[in-house]
Amino acid sequence: MVSVLLLNGPNLNMLGKREPEIYGSETLEDIVGRLKKTMEEELGGRLEHVQSNHEGVLIDAIHQAKGIHDGLIINPGAFTHYSYAIRDALASVALPTIEIHMSNVHAREEFRHHSVIAPIVSGQIVGLGSDGYDWALQALVRKIKNSRVG
Amino acid sequence: MVSVLLLNGPNLNMLGKREPEIYGSETLEDIVGRLKKTMEEELGGRLEHVQSNHEGVLIDAIHQAKGIHDGLIINPGAFTHYSYAIRDALASVALPTIEIHMSNVHAREEFRHHSVIAPIVSGQIVGLGSDGYDWALQALVRKIKNSRVG
Amino acid sequence: MVSVLLLNGPNLNMLGKREPEIYGSETLEDIVGRLKKTMEEELGGRLEHVQSNHEGVLIDAIHQAKGIHDGLIINPGAFTHYSYAIRDALASVALPTIEIHMSNVHAREEFRHHSVIAPIVSGQIVGLGSDGYDWALQALVRKIKNSRVG
Amino acid sequence: MVSVLLLNGPNLNMLGKREPEIYGSETLEDIVGRLKKTMEEELGGRLEHVQSNHEGVLIDAIHQAKGIHDGLIINPGAFTHYSYAIRDALASVALPTIEIHMSNVHAREEFRHHSVIAPIVSGQIVGLGSDGYDWALQALVRKIKNSRVG
Amino acid sequence: MVSVLLLNGPNLNMLGKREPEIYGSETLEDIVGRLKKTMEEELGGRLEHVQSNHEGVLIDAIHQAKGIHDGLIINPGAFTHYSYAIRDALASVALPTIEIHMSNVHAREEFRHHSVIAPIVSGQIVGLGSDGYDWALQALVRKIKNSRVG
Amino acid sequence: MVSVLLLNGPNLNMLGKREPEIYGSETLEDIVGRLKKTMEEELGGRLEHVQSNHEGVLIDAIHQAKGIHDGLIINPGAFTHYSYAIRDALASVALPTIEIHMSNVHAREEFRHHSVIAPIVSGQIVGLGSDGYDWALQALVRKIKNSRVG
Amino acid sequence: MVSVLLLNGPNLNMLGKREPEIYGSETLEDIVGRLKKTMEEELGGRLEHVQSNHEGVLIDAIHQAKGIHDGLIINPGAFTHYSYAIRDALASVALPTIEIHMSNVHAREEFRHHSVIAPIVSGQIVGLGSDGYDWALQALVRKIKNSRVG
Amino acid sequence: MVSVLLLNGPNLNMLGKREPEIYGSETLEDIVGRLKKTMEEELGGRLEHVQSNHEGVLIDAIHQAKGIHDGLIINPGAFTHYSYAIRDALASVALPTIEIHMSNVHAREEFRHHSVIAPIVSGQIVGLGSDGYDWALQALVRKIKNSRVG
Amino acid sequence: MVSVLLLNGPNLNMLGKREPEIYGSETLEDIVGRLKKTMEEELGGRLEHVQSNHEGVLIDAIHQAKGIHDGLIINPGAFTHYSYAIRDALASVALPTIEIHMSNVHAREEFRHHSVIAPIVSGQIVGLGSDGYDWALQALVRKIKNSRVG
Amino acid sequence: MVSVLLLNGPNLNMLGKREPEIYGSETLEDIVGRLKKTMEEELGGRLEHVQSNHEGVLIDAIHQAKGIHDGLIINPGAFTHYSYAIRDALASVALPTIEIHMSNVHAREEFRHHSVIAPIVSGQIVGLGSDGYDWALQALVRKIKNSRVG
Amino acid sequence: MVSVLLLNGPNLNMLGKREPEIYGSETLEDIVGRLKKTMEEELGGRLEHVQSNHEGVLIDAIHQAKGIHDGLIINPGAFTHYSYAIRDALASVALPTIEIHMSNVHAREEFRHHSVIAPIVSGQIVGLGSDGYDWALQALVRKIKNSRVG
Amino acid sequence: MVSVLLLNGPNLNMLGKREPEIYGSETLEDIVGRLKKTMEEELGGRLEHVQSNHEGVLIDAIHQAKGIHDGLIINPGAFTHYSYAIRDALASVALPTIEIHMSNVHAREEFRHHSVIAPIVSGQIVGLGSDGYDWALQALVRKIKNSRVG
Repeated sequence: MVSVLLLNGPNLNMLGKREPEIYGSETLEDIVGRLKKTMEEELGGRLEHVQSNHEGVLIDAIHQAKGIHDGLIINPGAFTHYSYAIRDALASVALPTIEIHMSNVHAREEFRHHSVIAPIVSGQIVGLGSDGYDWALQALVRKIKNSRVG
Repeated sequence: MVSVLLLNGPNLNMLGKREPEIYGSETLEDIVGRLKKTMEEELGGRLEHVQSNHEGVLIDAIHQAKGIHDGLIINPGAFTHYSYAIRDALASVALPTIEIHMSNVHAREEFRHHSVIAPIVSGQIVGLGSDGYDWALQALVRKIKNSRVG
Repeated sequence: MVSVLLLNGPNLNMLGKREPEIYGSETLEDIVGRLKKTMEEELGGRLEHVQSNHEGVLIDAIHQAKGIHDGLIINPGAFTHYSYAIRDALASVALPTIEIHMSNVHAREEFRHHSVIAPIVSGQIVGLGSDGYDWALQALVRKIKNSRVG
Repeated sequence: MVSVLLLNGPNLNMLGKREPEIYGSETLEDIVGRLKKTMEEELGGRLEHVQSNHEGVLIDAIHQAKGIHDGLIINPGAFTHYSYAIRDALASVALPTIEIHMSNVHAREEFRHHSVIAPIVSGQIVGLGSDGYDWALQALVRKIKNSRVG
Repeated sequence: MVSVLLLNGPNLNMLGKREPEIYGSETLEDIVGRLKKTMEEELGGRLEHVQSNHEGVLIDAIHQAKGIHDGLIINPGAFTHYSYAIRDALASVALPTIEIHMSNVHAREEFRHHSVIAPIVSGQIVGLGSDGYDWALQALVRKIKNSRVG
Repeated sequence: MVSVLLLNGPNLNMLGKREPEIYGSETLEDIVGRLKKTMEEELGGRLEHVQSNHEGVLIDAIHQAKGIHDGLIINPGAFTHYSYAIRDALASVALPTIEIHMSNVHAREEFRHHSVIAPIVSGQIVGLGSDGYDWALQALVRKIKNSRVG
Repeated sequence: MVSVLLLNGPNLNMLGKREPEIYGSETLEDIVGRLKKTMEEELGGRLEHVQSNHEGVLIDAIHQAKGIHDGLIINPGAFTHYSYAIRDALASVALPTIEIHMSNVHAREEFRHHSVIAPIVSGQIVGLGSDGYDWALQALVRKIKNSRVG
Repeated sequence: MVSVLLLNGPNLNMLGKREPEIYGSETLEDIVGRLKKTMEEELGGRLEHVQSNHEGVLIDAIHQAKGIHDGLIINPGAFTHYSYAIRDALASVALPTIEIHMSNVHAREEFRHHSVIAPIVSGQIVGLGSDGYDWALQALVRKIKNSRVG
Repeated sequence: MVSVLLLNGPNLNMLGKREPEIYGSETLEDIVGRLKKTMEEELGGRLEHVQSNHEGVLIDAIHQAKGIHDGLIINPGAFTHYSYAIRDALASVALPTIEIHMSNVHAREEFRHHSVIAPIVSGQIVGLGSDGYDWALQALVRKIKNSRVG
Repeated sequence: MVSVLLLNGPNLNMLGKREPEIYGSETLEDIVGRLKKTMEEELGGRLEHVQSNHEGVLIDAIHQAKGIHDGLIINPGAFTHYSYAIRDALASVALPTIEIHMSNVHAREEFRHHSVIAPIVSGQIVGLGSDGYDWALQALVRKIKNSRVG
Repeated sequence: MVSVLLLNGPNLNMLGKREPEIYGSETLEDIVGRLKKTMEEELGGRLEHVQSNHEGVLIDAIHQAKGIHDGLIINPGAFTHYSYAIRDALASVALPTIEIHMSNVHAREEFRHHSVIAPIVSGQIVGLGSDGYDWALQALVRKIKNSRVG
Repeated sequence: MVSVLLLNGPNLNMLGKREPEIYGSETLEDIVGRLKKTMEEELGGRLEHVQSNHEGVLIDAIHQAKGIHDGLIINPGAFTHYSYAIRDALASVALPTIEIHMSNVHAREEFRHHSVIAPIVSGQIVGLGSDGYDWALQALVRKIKNSRVG
């Protein structure tokens, strides 16, 4: 059985309550519920979720993932652009990780074009709205299963 | 009745105990006391105050301000220069906000010249010492009242 | 029925024959064959494919897609980093488009970190190997179908 | 009695006639009238006003303020971004000075983010509309009176 | 009847007396004379001309053009590269404006490659010698007439 | 008799079919037809036209112009910003050349502000819509005729 | 008796569990144990230790050190590169401070070459592995004792 | 027997017809003829030649060289400065390659100082005129023969 | 007889009244008086002087110098750093010119290190206090006399 | 027995005679004497010393250290910021090396923040005054002894 | 008879003793011996050699070459990247000069990509190992002989 | 009696033998002879001269000047642009120093515009040919004499 930790960074708890023209009207709870269902019913796995506006809480969660989860999905929110501490945390546990951004960050303000996280993740999904989480989950589980076979 | 949330970022709890040649000898408690008094006795409103050295605590406070307060005054301290997460939090609640710095940040080290917060606030007051808080309060309350009339 | 045009830029014809430690041993023909099968058998659509080392051939293909295809998947190869002409071509036909890179370009040479295409596409899938094409196809078709319903 | 010189740089004579979505419909005459009234009736002082589109006229006025006025309020308009000559003039008379911008210059074009004047003023008020002039006047007069007491 | 204001910035009064290998031997008077004749005899309009080495004089002239002239032709000379004040003046009157440079500024010193005026004009004519004025006049008048028809 | 080669770069074949708010509704065929007519009926010359989305095709055409045509008009489209190869081709044939852009490229995205072609052309016409082609033709023919007289 | 506060930033709790080719196999507990022993048995002092992945916890600890400890040793981990808040905290308590990095940060990724903390510390020890903590302790205690003599 | 492919990029077909003060009066045919003779009569090998102004043609030729030729000599012309696609093509076939420039590119315009090709070739010969081709051929053949011995 | 025009830019009228630790206590009148005396009694020439805070007044004066004076000495004050208009004026009259700065501008703020005037003057004298004017006068007169002999 | 070469770069012979507020009043002879004593009496080793203002002398000394000494301590003085030749010399002998700076270079002029030597040394000790030499010696000897055991 | 001076900069005396994976196992003596033999037996000339780690020694040698030697070959080692003094020395004697680097400097650290020498030499040979010296000698002698004929 | 040390850096021994269109035909010996004569006969002082192409020799000479000479004149040649070691040497002796350049370095190559020496000298004379040495001597002696009086 595959176990995945989903991490959401600062302000993602405001999803569905905030700038709907960019992020849509779904709440984070809607998305997580859907992902858990897919994980359990379709992919035969388990999904745990942590959202926090505190960088330290996310780092602690990444450390604890080691030995418990098989992979990570992370939407680091604004931490994407400066949290070298989260980058180092991800590097230290060395689990397969997919970075996701709901909006097309490359079409927004200049500072959103650069991710300090990207160089150490497995892959990135950008600009596909909340569907991006679904594809990330599918892709991560397939990646984990393939690595078990080999 | 107008309700305002005052936010003070990292190290501002050291006010009056720290580099008095730059920040004066008043403590943060002195300033907040004076502002609360003005708010209650003169402007007929309510002021709540949060100081924290934790970025996440400030973001949580901004989120909770939505629906409770009519506007924000923020001195982000050193977070001014890198906390895109606080910027996004302010943008997500979309309340009138005034950014304040007691010292003239443009006359100090290079890194203090750039604010990642500034582009999404209503206004900025810089370099007027602790009086800057008074002017910010006056200005914010007038702005809120005017928007109610129109 | 959904019709999609898949575009592959310079050197992608060398896939499976070139630097297998980065790109794997699958050939482009293998990938396109698998995608066509998924499209026909699973998604009930049609996939056309153009690979070229000539920028002009790709631009012509993009222009001709207008009115024939419902969306585009593009792996621009090295054109990613300088072909403003392909960017303008994509903008001129205004079809939903997903940009894909098999390797994690953010973990490679500096010049591969910047895409001149990204600001005008719908989304990006990066670093998921040849699976990235599968997820791009799934995501694009879902996006096209959703836009028809609304 | 306190005497203040208010300086307005290029194009501010167009206020109320120009881009009202940014600057409002008040004219410069309206603002100066209101400030003079506040100064005389409320603060017991005197306000003189100079507006010019000529950099040299502003510099001459700054020089002549020495010994006549107790402080300066300046909205340098576009000179903000390149007039090192006005900066030097302000430095040479060494009077308390507040720089004001009606719009939030940090939320407009890139070139408006940098002020060559800021490093040598006492404080800055940005983005509070024409009210910014009122706060600047209040703040400057208090600052001048305080310095007399001490 | 169409009325146009022609503005020439610093040093253009030296035309014909200065660096003839770059600017030719015609004087500014020759050019203005020819343009006035074309305007009156051929285009049935009126041309007024102001040349000044004073930035403020040009700004005042731009302000006064509002309501009197239908469009502007401006050769800002060296002000091209730093006068954000002239840029703001042009933006404030919002008349159709053509920027002209006789020499190919892009083939000369680096600092001449960037125009702070260019982003807010209707068009630019560069490197066509004094003929550029003729083309600018023709183009501007046609533009004004077309906008009247529509 | 004067012979001129008109070159249009990538995506200009989409004119009239693409982003009409920037480029108008005229097609490239309309413009070329009008220019040919002017050339034959009014200026007593000959105009040949090549449009291509292939950089190499444009370079070949420039080479072949030597000895056949007296001058060039080029709208390099997006090649403006990176094709040093077209720049070298133009330099190698050393014919009088006018670069034209219909929209005001200086008022659009940052990357459109810089032309690698500009330093080696005779002149530039920017932002005058499709009329720019007319002015370019008039200017080029006069330039060629003048150089014959002298 | 000398009292020293040792601070370790994000991810240093993973020491000995993480990338041993860079950081060795010792755990943070091993190092702190050794340092406490040296402090008590050899240097006749007291060492307190705080490790946190939370920037705010570190700032709080720095503030509380004032009046309790005589000096600080800090390995800020990834906060080295962006935490201006920690820098300000250190400046506000004005205690002698040594910054330490176990690996040679100048031989790793570009972003690790710059420390925002360095300009306000007393000294830096870089690249000497876990021994760096021992030398920092020896050096800090000598520095504190010397300052008492003078 | 050694087989070498010589590639010449855009505008090199103009050699001898173009800017002779920089490139001399020899034509490309002269040079290729001489190289073929040396190859056959002196070095006992075979030389094939492709010149094109089309980036795609050069990439196709590089791909086809794999398995047919033992090494490459390339003068990428202006593609030197931006064709990451040619760079990737050369990297994908992994044949010994020498980059040559006839003129001293470091003594010409700024943009000619940087080669995107250089990091992946074996060596570079710059500024030795058409002789550079001869030395490149000698050097490449010696390199290929040496690698066969070892 | 030699005739020289001395130009002093913005704020130099404040000399002796302003920041004496940088500029000394001499007034501009003292300096000009001394220079005139040297010129008349020692060098047998004539010195005219213009000081202005208006860029345009300086440009007009430069233009009028042509045919009347044999050379120029200019201390452009803060115009040094941005007045391309004064630079062009100096270039247009093509008289021998010496640029002088009393303080060592290279040892002061960053923005004072760059002179837009310097590339077109004959020489520069920097950091020699008010003596710099004397040396400039001597040097200029010798230069003028030498050019008459040859 | 351990043998160490101590190298001091330009101007360090002036120690104790120069800017004592930055470097203290000890002379270089004092420091070297103390280090030799520690080395002989305490660490049972040998220390050789070379100071030179000549880059070449330092490089020669580094080359000759190979096979004679077990490690190096270097204070490169101002060569720190540009001597790639010393960097290459250190890399070529591949001995354990510690770089030391007495003052905190990160708190001084911008150009002192960057070391071209740092990426190839074992470690760095910065800002601990002349004590830094003592710690460097202790640390280097421990490092050498440990590497002999393993 | 042709006379050539070969110059080798810092650390090249370590050749064959240093990082053989980059520079091979040949010593500098081997190479110089081979070149002298080629020069005497094959090319009928004379080769003199100077290697130094001292910039000044190389400059003196360049000056003395004037009138004695007909050309120079220089491998400036690390001086390549900062010795403007060697550049000026080469420019002052104005002899034909070839710059050589054994390794492909463009594939190594960033700072090795830029040569301050390159703009004033005749040509460059890069990345061909010690053979580069042979080709440089052949090329230089041919160049010198050709210039004698013309 | 005043004693002055004149220092000339690399390649200045070539004066009169090198690029006469920039530096004139006078030799360094001519200039030094003239200066010594002026010094002895006119100014009643002593001038010593050192020219070297070795950075270390110049640094040694600066150190030895302390206590023997009253001031320095230095033309650092190309060392101007990178020798932080000479800068530190000059700072360490703290003698009045004038930096001189014969040509107008601001009108030559980009790299010659920046002096690392300038921030710590008393003054600079640029672009006045060999006369610059005369003015520097006059100015330095007057400066030294004045400081004795005060």
